[in-house]
Amino acid sequence: MIIKEKSNWFRMLFVWHGSVLPDIFPRLVALLLLSSLIVYFRGQFFEYKIPLNPTPFTLIGIAMAIFLGFRNNASYDRFWEGRKLWGALLIDSRSLTRQALTLTQLPAQSGKVVAFTRLVIAFAYALKHQLRRTDATPDLQRLLPPDLAQTVQKVKFKPIRLLQEIGLWVQQLKTEGQIDTIAQAAFDHNLNQLSGIVGGCERIAGTPIPYTYSVLLHRTVYIYCFLLPFGLVDSIGWMTPIMTVFVGYTFIALDAIVTEIEEPFGLEPNDLPLNSICQTIETSLLEMIDQEAPAFPPRRKPYWAD
Amino acid sequence: MIIKEKSNWFRMLFVWHGSVLPDIFPRLVALLLLSSLIVYFRGQFFEYKIPLNPTPFTLIGIAMAIFLGFRNNASYDRFWEGRKLWGALLIDSRSLTRQALTLTQLPAQSGKVVAFTRLVIAFAYALKHQLRRTDATPDLQRLLPPDLAQTVQKVKFKPIRLLQEIGLWVQQLKTEGQIDTIAQAAFDHNLNQLSGIVGGCERIAGTPIPYTYSVLLHRTVYIYCFLLPFGLVDSIGWMTPIMTVFVGYTFIALDAIVTEIEEPFGLEPNDLPLNSICQTIETSLLEMIDQEAPAFPPRRKPYWAD
Amino acid sequence: MIIKEKSNWFRMLFVWHGSVLPDIFPRLVALLLLSSLIVYFRGQFFEYKIPLNPTPFTLIGIAMAIFLGFRNNASYDRFWEGRKLWGALLIDSRSLTRQALTLTQLPAQSGKVVAFTRLVIAFAYALKHQLRRTDATPDLQRLLPPDLAQTVQKVKFKPIRLLQEIGLWVQQLKTEGQIDTIAQAAFDHNLNQLSGIVGGCERIAGTPIPYTYSVLLHRTVYIYCFLLPFGLVDSIGWMTPIMTVFVGYTFIALDAIVTEIEEPFGLEPNDLPLNSICQTIETSLLEMIDQEAPAFPPRRKPYWAD
Amino acid sequence: MIIKEKSNWFRMLFVWHGSVLPDIFPRLVALLLLSSLIVYFRGQFFEYKIPLNPTPFTLIGIAMAIFLGFRNNASYDRFWEGRKLWGALLIDSRSLTRQALTLTQLPAQSGKVVAFTRLVIAFAYALKHQLRRTDATPDLQRLLPPDLAQTVQKVKFKPIRLLQEIGLWVQQLKTEGQIDTIAQAAFDHNLNQLSGIVGGCERIAGTPIPYTYSVLLHRTVYIYCFLLPFGLVDSIGWMTPIMTVFVGYTFIALDAIVTEIEEPFGLEPNDLPLNSICQTIETSLLEMIDQEAPAFPPRRKPYWAD
Amino acid sequence: MIIKEKSNWFRMLFVWHGSVLPDIFPRLVALLLLSSLIVYFRGQFFEYKIPLNPTPFTLIGIAMAIFLGFRNNASYDRFWEGRKLWGALLIDSRSLTRQALTLTQLPAQSGKVVAFTRLVIAFAYALKHQLRRTDATPDLQRLLPPDLAQTVQKVKFKPIRLLQEIGLWVQQLKTEGQIDTIAQAAFDHNLNQLSGIVGGCERIAGTPIPYTYSVLLHRTVYIYCFLLPFGLVDSIGWMTPIMTVFVGYTFIALDAIVTEIEEPFGLEPNDLPLNSICQTIETSLLEMIDQEAPAFPPRRKPYWAD
Repeated sequence: MIIKEKSNWFRMLFVWHGSVLPDIFPRLVALLLLSSLIVYFRGQFFEYKIPLNPTPFTLIGIAMAIFLGFRNNASYDRFWEGRKLWGALLIDSRSLTRQALTLTQLPAQSGKVVAFTRLVIAFAYALKHQLRRTDATPDLQRLLPPDLAQTVQKVKFKPIRLLQEIGLWVQQLKTEGQIDTIAQAAFDHNLNQLSGIVGGCERIAGTPIPYTYSVLLHRTVYIYCFLLPFGLVDSIGWMTPIMTVFVGYTFIALDAIVTEIEEPFGLEPNDLPLNSICQTIETSLLEMIDQEAPAFPPRRKPYWAD
Repeated sequence: MIIKEKSNWFRMLFVWHGSVLPDIFPRLVALLLLSSLIVYFRGQFFEYKIPLNPTPFTLIGIAMAIFLGFRNNASYDRFWEGRKLWGALLIDSRSLTRQALTLTQLPAQSGKVVAFTRLVIAFAYALKHQLRRTDATPDLQRLLPPDLAQTVQKVKFKPIRLLQEIGLWVQQLKTEGQIDTIAQAAFDHNLNQLSGIVGGCERIAGTPIPYTYSVLLHRTVYIYCFLLPFGLVDSIGWMTPIMTVFVGYTFIALDAIVTEIEEPFGLEPNDLPLNSICQTIETSLLEMIDQEAPAFPPRRKPYWAD
Repeated sequence: MIIKEKSNWFRMLFVWHGSVLPDIFPRLVALLLLSSLIVYFRGQFFEYKIPLNPTPFTLIGIAMAIFLGFRNNASYDRFWEGRKLWGALLIDSRSLTRQALTLTQLPAQSGKVVAFTRLVIAFAYALKHQLRRTDATPDLQRLLPPDLAQTVQKVKFKPIRLLQEIGLWVQQLKTEGQIDTIAQAAFDHNLNQLSGIVGGCERIAGTPIPYTYSVLLHRTVYIYCFLLPFGLVDSIGWMTPIMTVFVGYTFIALDAIVTEIEEPFGLEPNDLPLNSICQTIETSLLEMIDQEAPAFPPRRKPYWAD
Repeated sequence: MIIKEKSNWFRMLFVWHGSVLPDIFPRLVALLLLSSLIVYFRGQFFEYKIPLNPTPFTLIGIAMAIFLGFRNNASYDRFWEGRKLWGALLIDSRSLTRQALTLTQLPAQSGKVVAFTRLVIAFAYALKHQLRRTDATPDLQRLLPPDLAQTVQKVKFKPIRLLQEIGLWVQQLKTEGQIDTIAQAAFDHNLNQLSGIVGGCERIAGTPIPYTYSVLLHRTVYIYCFLLPFGLVDSIGWMTPIMTVFVGYTFIALDAIVTEIEEPFGLEPNDLPLNSICQTIETSLLEMIDQEAPAFPPRRKPYWAD
Repeated sequence: MIIKEKSNWFRMLFVWHGSVLPDIFPRLVALLLLSSLIVYFRGQFFEYKIPLNPTPFTLIGIAMAIFLGFRNNASYDRFWEGRKLWGALLIDSRSLTRQALTLTQLPAQSGKVVAFTRLVIAFAYALKHQLRRTDATPDLQRLLPPDLAQTVQKVKFKPIRLLQEIGLWVQQLKTEGQIDTIAQAAFDHNLNQLSGIVGGCERIAGTPIPYTYSVLLHRTVYIYCFLLPFGLVDSIGWMTPIMTVFVGYTFIALDAIVTEIEEPFGLEPNDLPLNSICQTIETSLLEMIDQEAPAFPPRRKPYWAD
């Protein structure tokens, strides 16, 4: 995710990185060339004048506003719900660690608490890897005891298995008589929350906005943009290419942004920085049990959190 | 539900499967023919010129935007709430299985835990069959002991009965002294959640968006589209059929999509893949108790999850 | 509430029952006559020409869109929240019955459980009667022991009193030592939910959308519609009555629908089928305790659930 | 709050009470005079013709729609959230009273239960007085024992102190061995809810919609309305004043309504009827413990609940 | 945050403080100069006439409405969610203090309760300082015992560490046998809530609205405004500068407001008054344990709560 300080209003007009412009540049150039040709031939096509004016575009505008507005809102809701789920992951991880410290009598530095905290951290990394379809092995080996790491690697739903392990850790404490059922239920409540986070992320990752919407919106936007110069050429002459590209830029750019944030768990410029959140979880949880966090590799680009 | 990788922006303009185009094609052809006739007769009707221009269409546009925008949002909310309920079903099923493993002292492979897990899986399938009004018998017989399968088949609200059976399973554990009331209450909390999921699905399936809305929107869209060529013919001449079909495509397609996702539990191209979710639940729950999931039959079409 | 299968797109254009048309027909006829007169006199009024064109109507359109859009959304939210509350009533009734069966040791057919279930069913009917201001006596007498029915009939807030009775039923079980405080608290949680449902319904029934909104919207819609023919007559001549009635139909129909669903607990065609939901609750709860539901009288009209 | 039966659609056009018209009448008259002058001078200003047409107003319309739509929704959300909070107050008051009756062994008429119920009722009145900045003394003296009334009157956050007293009442029951910690926790859960209601009301009362929005919207509306006649005079002549006032009425009335419901706890015509809700709480709670409610003074105006 | 009484509608038109006008004044002057130049040269540019009319601006208006409406709503949601989180902080702080008084047997003035209350107050201040990136040292030293203040100052996530300390305070009470596990779980529930508040605030502070949106909206607004005079000059002549600045004011002002409230935890005129809320928490909590709140320094400006 691109994280930049808001700059001066004037300089912001010429930003290149972090804007969607590099992505859609070729399409805008195509639009510019087409509309220049149309101006050159004055809207004629082999001696046939295309009799178009801006009115029908006003009418289509209504449908466009509904499609774009809807798809934009729906996509941003997915993005923001994804962010909320990962924020809740940070919250519940901390709550679980606090419970391990205060509902039990275990000291912060004891092996049991460290093992528990590492399980919770591994859970976050495992979820990240599942959502991004990347290999969880290095993180699991770094954080878990070797045999557990091996078991978890074999299963399909890794975060769920880790959740189960956290549950068994709590169960053992109960069996040893260190906590009673009420404390166990308090842990269990937060495990339910984590289960909810996994399910929520899987839902967003697995169920896109109905495909038909994307097709319909996509088509409307492009037909609109490539018919527009015919509608404008009679009234604004050689300004047609400039205005067409301006209108086209706004619609095509929105279509492109929306397609990106619709799937918020990927690695595109506007996707959620899952890796950074995992590192924050690791740092925060280790701080709670008075341990140093490992040194994380620096960001690939200064303004880009992955 | 159609699940396709987003393709190149250019190729997406010509997608046929997964678009709503096949469905509404005949209506668009009718619209094309009508508006071609109107152009041919220059908007005259037995020597009477129909004196129409685009202005009234701009005014109706306001009402259209409200109707379409509202109905689209309301339908998508139903679709997405349905998806959330089924996501919650996955979440709570896993939580219940985790509780069966960690709140009790039962080993993962014990008969009791397996029976419990199968009850939870059967619950998901029973809900699917109730919502789709399909026959639950094969799934129930596959998952439940014969006598229970028979009892459940006879009742009207099958998932509710299965929920009751899960509650009785927990009760028995309590009677045997394996768990105390607190653990029972923790199970009960998740059973309440499942009860809420059933009720939520029944609500969506049983209460459509008020019928009057559909009628009103439907009428407005079609009267608008079939009057439009009269309004355009004087200013854009032979481009009228093309622009009319373009405008008509956007409105009629939206009307068609919305009618489809309004009832998200059916078997239309954009409906929710309840069957796939049931299979995910089965796979995930069986993995938690170290059991193999059965081999599911392959999808009928590669891009279509039912 | 009108529940109809979606019919063919063509036949849906001519639906009469279930559409709001019968209701607003006289107003549309008035609008047709007025605009025909205006066309006949070519917009003149005792030799004075009314100098109006469509532009001001475009400007007012903005305010109209905000009013209609807002009031429509607010009304539908009330309708849908009402439906959610009644869905939650079904959910919590089932949960309570399940708790009566699984948190206690009472057998399904025991008198105590039957009495409890009937209390819960009576609660649903009592709420329906309170919201519709109808007489609860027959349903209370049918479901409750005579003396309790008499006590409840006398109080003002009947559902609240029944909730109290359910609470006392639970308390007695506790006094008899059949359940402990934890199970009692689990019951109490669901009683809180039912209390919330009553309060939520009372809120919707008692607090309309601020009256000023209705007045403002109503006025804007009617002034707009009756001024419109003056604005259209110069440009579209004898098509004015047709287009005016078309525009008027969309706005006036929306105003009429919205007024109807704003109060969702009544008996108008688009109101919630509270009676059917009560019957579903009765059927489902009796099925849970292995009892037959009584035969309900058939619907007055096949497509109308009251 | 004005509560009127919806009247006939025709009579509703001429409603005066309950409409915002009396409030904004002088401004509309000013607008009428100004635009009449402009018509009289045909848009000239000391021989200089003001060259304006409706087009720029269409462009500003976009910004207007966003501002008005947003501020209207945000204000109504505040209004409705305030209503929900007071609905929740009714709900939780009843739940607490039910708990006092069913989680303890105290009889309904016992002094302890009466004292508890009066504490809960006093809490509702204290919150009303805090939000309206009125004097709570009479209601506190009426409901509480003299010494407690005196203590509460001295503190700044009165409802919070009463909540504490309710908590101490529960604590004493626990000390006396009448309830165990689980029942105390069940009470405590509802006290948390009440605490949330106080905080929610304080939030709405203390944090308006950012002031800058109001200024910006206000300015746009008035500049728009007072420039409008210059834009209309050339095309619609002496209809200008009528249409200007019509447009102005819709925008200025919306601005006025929105300013009113933005602060929903006051005493303006569309504010929430906090006093009536308090009386409903008192009536309902006293009915639960079989006591008569006092006779409340009649409403000042028949259609106005304060 | 600027908190002003709503003034008379007429005086509100000329408000300077609290309006965004001072901020964007230079840009509006630039726009005024540019459009005056364009009027002077009658839209010619070195003898070339720029052939533009208002139509393309109507088309771009659709995209503008979507962008501005979306970004405005998304930003306000962030603002309001931030406010809700801080309202919840007040609520949960009070609930925790009430629990410390009523779930334990500790008297209000005892050292333990005072220490607990100060921990909770310090938590609020620590969160404020973390969000504003200011130095927490003075507040921590004022409220905490010296050694704890020193420990907390060293860690990165200060509020989380304070939460842990509150948890340890509860744990000690349990170890001393003053409370049982159920009361501890009731405390723990509210600690989970506080953990959620920290995470929620971190989420809003750490994840802006995707940068690409800001760039796209920003560009569209400014290109639109600086092209507009070319489009208006032919039809409204010397009124062009006035109307351009009016249109520009509405769009640029909205862009500026939105940028401000998007990050609601800062110190700009429309940001949340975190400091005031902290002081309210301190006053309210100390009042609950019958202690005097310290005298806070007066506000820097009478209408500005920081």
